[in-house]
Amino acid sequence: MTRYEQLAQSMAVEIRSGNLAPGARMPSLRQIIAQHGVSQSTVSRAYYLLEQWGLVLAEERSGYYVAPPANAPEAAARASAGESATVDISELVFSVLDAAKQPGIVPLGSAFPSPLLFPLSRLAKSLGQAARNVSPWSTVVDLPPGNENLRRQIALRYLRVGISQPADDIVVTNGALEALNLCLMAVTQPGDIVAVESPGFYVALQAIERLGLRAVEIPVDPTAGLDLDALAQALEKHPIRACWFMTNFQNPTGVTLSAEKKQALVELLARHEVPLIEDDVYGELHYAPNYPPPAMAFDRRGLVMHCGSFSKTLAPGYRVGWASAGRFAERVQRLKLMTTLSASIPVQAGIADYLEHGGYERHLKKIRLALQAQRDAMAGAIRRWLPEGTQQTQPEGGYFLWLRFREPIDAMALHRLAIERGISVAPGPLFSVSHGFENCIRLNYGHPWSPRIEEAIRTLGALLVRPEVRAHD
Amino acid sequence: MTRYEQLAQSMAVEIRSGNLAPGARMPSLRQIIAQHGVSQSTVSRAYYLLEQWGLVLAEERSGYYVAPPANAPEAAARASAGESATVDISELVFSVLDAAKQPGIVPLGSAFPSPLLFPLSRLAKSLGQAARNVSPWSTVVDLPPGNENLRRQIALRYLRVGISQPADDIVVTNGALEALNLCLMAVTQPGDIVAVESPGFYVALQAIERLGLRAVEIPVDPTAGLDLDALAQALEKHPIRACWFMTNFQNPTGVTLSAEKKQALVELLARHEVPLIEDDVYGELHYAPNYPPPAMAFDRRGLVMHCGSFSKTLAPGYRVGWASAGRFAERVQRLKLMTTLSASIPVQAGIADYLEHGGYERHLKKIRLALQAQRDAMAGAIRRWLPEGTQQTQPEGGYFLWLRFREPIDAMALHRLAIERGISVAPGPLFSVSHGFENCIRLNYGHPWSPRIEEAIRTLGALLVRPEVRAHD
Repeated sequence: MTRYEQLAQSMAVEIRSGNLAPGARMPSLRQIIAQHGVSQSTVSRAYYLLEQWGLVLAEERSGYYVAPPANAPEAAARASAGESATVDISELVFSVLDAAKQPGIVPLGSAFPSPLLFPLSRLAKSLGQAARNVSPWSTVVDLPPGNENLRRQIALRYLRVGISQPADDIVVTNGALEALNLCLMAVTQPGDIVAVESPGFYVALQAIERLGLRAVEIPVDPTAGLDLDALAQALEKHPIRACWFMTNFQNPTGVTLSAEKKQALVELLARHEVPLIEDDVYGELHYAPNYPPPAMAFDRRGLVMHCGSFSKTLAPGYRVGWASAGRFAERVQRLKLMTTLSASIPVQAGIADYLEHGGYERHLKKIRLALQAQRDAMAGAIRRWLPEGTQQTQPEGGYFLWLRFREPIDAMALHRLAIERGISVAPGPLFSVSHGFENCIRLNYGHPWSPRIEEAIRTLGALLVRPEVRAHD
Repeated sequence: MTRYEQLAQSMAVEIRSGNLAPGARMPSLRQIIAQHGVSQSTVSRAYYLLEQWGLVLAEERSGYYVAPPANAPEAAARASAGESATVDISELVFSVLDAAKQPGIVPLGSAFPSPLLFPLSRLAKSLGQAARNVSPWSTVVDLPPGNENLRRQIALRYLRVGISQPADDIVVTNGALEALNLCLMAVTQPGDIVAVESPGFYVALQAIERLGLRAVEIPVDPTAGLDLDALAQALEKHPIRACWFMTNFQNPTGVTLSAEKKQALVELLARHEVPLIEDDVYGELHYAPNYPPPAMAFDRRGLVMHCGSFSKTLAPGYRVGWASAGRFAERVQRLKLMTTLSASIPVQAGIADYLEHGGYERHLKKIRLALQAQRDAMAGAIRRWLPEGTQQTQPEGGYFLWLRFREPIDAMALHRLAIERGISVAPGPLFSVSHGFENCIRLNYGHPWSPRIEEAIRTLGALLVRPEVRAHD
């Protein structure tokens, strides 16, 4: 933990314990510098964190005050009430993510798995070697579509599941997030309508908001996946320009579309000439022996833009993903050149080196087993501690569970109370433009099981029966 | 050089020498595989390159044919003739850049300096060490605004020129290109008007095109820089929402705004409440003893969004830049989170390590001296070989020269003839929405001087007197 995080945490303890009451003035920067012997930037940063966590409020020119309990999310909710649904989502997402950033929190609401699950020191070795050996001219040659060796390695992984994807049509990106955004930009103009999942990953909703697009939500059943009939109707009713779906181990439900449904999806979209942006960042984290082939495997028309990443499977923080964008590959490549030029060149070479020599398959086997065991542990704790009748999904890959409670609850209220107790959850309303799913939460089981996590689930169980959390309508 | 590049180059020689005439059918993939003993992907990639260079044309299902001479740029020029000015620029830029990608070309039209000018092996050492030592949790903690140590190092560099920039308001990006794009997104909506320089960097024009914005061009004098009177008039006449200017060693002219003009610029924009996106990627490559302070140094209102990068000064291809976005810092940070999440985390740590321990100042001194000597060598060759009366700028930093010829010429024709002779130049029309500057070219002197470059300048001199290059109107 850095100095400023330590400082912020010690101040957070003072506030939570009640030693510093709501409304009380916080010590000035100068006082803290004198008292703790830290630099000004450390104090500023600590206060910044405390503000992010909703524990203090800044008043211009007069300093910081202790915030009323769980200030940040409530304020965000109030601010968004009068605005349009599409503007809401970012504020809501950021307020929840900021609150959950607090160090030391039990990260059940996080989007990331534990970094300890990854072969980071072996990767560092590959990165160092590749950086030393890469040709100076690669800084020009490896511009988009990207490092040739890496693209060949990715093409080989496609080939293993029977997909013959030319390496030249793969564009390396700064993680899947950039790939998805570039694909969306490649096939839409402001004002266009895009079909997304509901519940679905909030990042898709943010991208739609940012690009001035409109969303049509297609229901996702937590056990059967995307509702294809509803999609067919939406395609008749709206001039949908693109779909953005997650076909394997969907975020947030964990559900996977069957091969038959994937094929039907591809055929339906082909009839309407609508491109599919396929977010498949969790596919390699399958617990069954084989990778469930993505919808792309059924595509004959170049309409599927398949986006993958090493962030969830191998190298978090390295920011290497890719798009296999079918007939849109060149457009995506040019958008990449115009917006961020290229992915980091030594990093591309480093990942390629690891894929060739690092033992990727061995690592994947290990992480899949770990995640499966963690899923089972989480499922057990949910049965032990959460109210009877709670429905949970049983994903066959990835690291997200989706819960629906029998009695109506207010997931935002649960989120706020849980944060005060040092636990984050991802409340259902994050995953929809219309802020439904008040009765649902997403839990992350990407962290090694521990008594602390067990205890956190027990705390959630206790919170769920409190009147503030029960829905009032 | 890779296998496919060698193959492409040997086929290029056959075409250029006339052994394969325009319209002739190229050998099939199968024939080449049999003849050269290479893989199918090598042949595909080689043909891809030949197509990019405009040397062959692909006919669906029937193979490749030798293109008519200099096919690519002409085709692009034809395609763009009937379209709007803003759609033009990307096609024109890509056709010129693609043509100049040809390996072995004398890269006078390139936007990059020689990678050999950079301490790449010392950097690789820092990168390897940082990757090994970085905390696994940094994959979460170093999300935007970015690695704290790196932001502190950047803040220290600001402090050296008297700018007190809190590290917390610096957002680390995938190179300056992303920083500039995020800043532009942060302050504009589709349809808004943005002021740019003319001649100016084509990437600004591409961004404006991509985001559905409109450009107002403000003239840049090759010796005095931006015309502030023209800007003042434009601000009265148009509802300008942002300016995107390069204040130090401007691309393409190399001109630098004086401190007085920078201050006047900041004051003018403050009166109109218009943000300035300040592209300062060449500032550290000054030949005089001191870094010319950017316009940001005069900003009291948080209206200047200063964008910098290590790509031109230290680490090409690493893709690390930043934005100090004043009052827009939080918006830029959120846009970063939503579009590419974060810059590569080990790379951020690696650059920070180099800045602390690698000897950055020593390296900068060396590269500045090298570039200054190359500027002088280029200036001498221009005087020796190019037509009398050719005006050239004399930049005090960076690695671009701007030439204006006395007799009217067609810079696009010069570009095409030069490419056929293995020389790239950046024709003037690239640097303006209105495609003016037909009489100008930009030359890159970022490569160690050599007889080959001298000879290339001599060839340009010979081409400039040919009738195809003389303007006809």
